[in-house]
Amino acid sequence: MKSLKEIPLEELNREEFIRQRVQGIAEAVGSGLAVNALSGGVDSSVVTLLGHRALGDRLKTYFIDHGLMRQDEPQKIKLSFQELGIRVEIVEAKKEFFGALKGITDPEEKREAITQTFYKKVFGKIVKESGARFLLHGTNYTDVEETVTGIKRQHNILEQLGIDTQEAFGYKVLEPLVDLRKPAVRAIGRALGLPEEIYNRPPFPGPALATRVIGEVTPERIEIVKKATKIVEEELSITKAFQYLAILHDDKVTGIREGKREFGWQIEVRCWESTDARTGSPTRLAYEILEKLAERLTSEVPNVVSVTYNVTKKPPVTIEAL
Amino acid sequence: MKSLKEIPLEELNREEFIRQRVQGIAEAVGSGLAVNALSGGVDSSVVTLLGHRALGDRLKTYFIDHGLMRQDEPQKIKLSFQELGIRVEIVEAKKEFFGALKGITDPEEKREAITQTFYKKVFGKIVKESGARFLLHGTNYTDVEETVTGIKRQHNILEQLGIDTQEAFGYKVLEPLVDLRKPAVRAIGRALGLPEEIYNRPPFPGPALATRVIGEVTPERIEIVKKATKIVEEELSITKAFQYLAILHDDKVTGIREGKREFGWQIEVRCWESTDARTGSPTRLAYEILEKLAERLTSEVPNVVSVTYNVTKKPPVTIEAL
Repeated sequence: MKSLKEIPLEELNREEFIRQRVQGIAEAVGSGLAVNALSGGVDSSVVTLLGHRALGDRLKTYFIDHGLMRQDEPQKIKLSFQELGIRVEIVEAKKEFFGALKGITDPEEKREAITQTFYKKVFGKIVKESGARFLLHGTNYTDVEETVTGIKRQHNILEQLGIDTQEAFGYKVLEPLVDLRKPAVRAIGRALGLPEEIYNRPPFPGPALATRVIGEVTPERIEIVKKATKIVEEELSITKAFQYLAILHDDKVTGIREGKREFGWQIEVRCWESTDARTGSPTRLAYEILEKLAERLTSEVPNVVSVTYNVTKKPPVTIEAL
Repeated sequence: MKSLKEIPLEELNREEFIRQRVQGIAEAVGSGLAVNALSGGVDSSVVTLLGHRALGDRLKTYFIDHGLMRQDEPQKIKLSFQELGIRVEIVEAKKEFFGALKGITDPEEKREAITQTFYKKVFGKIVKESGARFLLHGTNYTDVEETVTGIKRQHNILEQLGIDTQEAFGYKVLEPLVDLRKPAVRAIGRALGLPEEIYNRPPFPGPALATRVIGEVTPERIEIVKKATKIVEEELSITKAFQYLAILHDDKVTGIREGKREFGWQIEVRCWESTDARTGSPTRLAYEILEKLAERLTSEVPNVVSVTYNVTKKPPVTIEAL
């Protein structure tokens, strides 16, 4: 029998998949409680819907506000799920995350700090207080693959790395999407009745804007990349590209403003054509768009003097910078 | 009377300019000796020809090999001038420059280290030994303007910054091109009989590849940017753009090679449309060219995993990164 990840998308029986996974969750959790963290991305949104079908109110859904998300993201997501009849609790945790990230520049150490703060400190406490013994998780097959082959440590990969979550964090992890790639997850989301702006949302990394800041992650630098991200998403949403992003570099470059030298920041823009994130090519954006991006980023984001566009394929570059 | 820098190029009387400047140099130097440093760029090449017309063998022309030039540059330049009947002496000074640059990451400190090593340590010694009391220098008007307004410290600006070269370095500086912008310098070069590959050469910064390396300048990092520069020049010479360059970033980014993570270097490419370097726009390069650049840079230059193209206008960015 073929494994799910090898089945062509058109042969995936969505209703059957949903029925099986809902049943699997219900059986695993029994009469207990479960929790999950909703980020607003397609993976965690699909898991939220599957979990609520299986468990109803016995699934508690939290949005961890670590301060690393896009502008106004927590409120937007809470509202979208409210319309689907699902209550989302926003957990304020900015201090914990910025505290854990202070002074760290190495990308793998950043991911590790976020993983530990997320699963151990913030979520561990929530689970303990709630009495839940299960965490529902949106890991998909590409996450597993990239982590196992050593390309990138996905923040949501735990058991695949040999971490016993039961022992380490006090709960067991259920991963109902672990054998699907992105296009299949989107198809399931659609079948579950998610609105299109969620099931077709461009991917956004787990550690969020922390992976879009090269060098130390501080509230000030997150503010810069948040503004840049908003502009890039506004200008590039019309492209229908697979993913588009703004990266704040740590390197400073020389600029001129009103005739005076300004040693300022550089924003790198990436925009990807891809079907499943395993390989990708830069979108051939018109120069009018690139120049408008450069104009807006250098005039609307304080101290940004330079904008570049990444023209490398994946591989050898990855979708995100870190 | 209009100053030279305000005269439209077509009204510049080239023969008259050459006659006046040759006479000026001859009068200033009298029966003494002068020296000049030839970098192979259009400014210092024009000065070399003017100086030799004025002084003949009483001008000693040196090529300072600081190790920061393009691949094979010293030999190529020596040969080109040999064909014009001018002897160029190559001065080996790699140790002095890399020693002075060790540990420096701030761009202005880099420029200062190069200026001091060039004019005081290396050139000071040459002048002393030769007995020359004059240094001929290719400063042009844009250099002066940018230094005086504080945009960028040009390495060849000394007296404009209030440095008394007579006292500081033991010689007096003559700057026969100081009231010309680049197009006028090229026109004079042509009139002097320079070959087109020199008088139409894209500008190359005085501190050379040191300004194309963000962060510390080491022999290893210069080797990387040298290889990248060669590829960018090979691929972009057909564009006839004003200037094109490769910049080695200090920020590392995540890549994948043969399925494994490679935390590697990023090269930024810039290609400029400009007439005089005061303002500029990125050349609208075809994506075929950009993708070929990315492919060559990531496969031919060790440990480069990512390539970007700068899409910002000048201002607010400058032509060079530092």
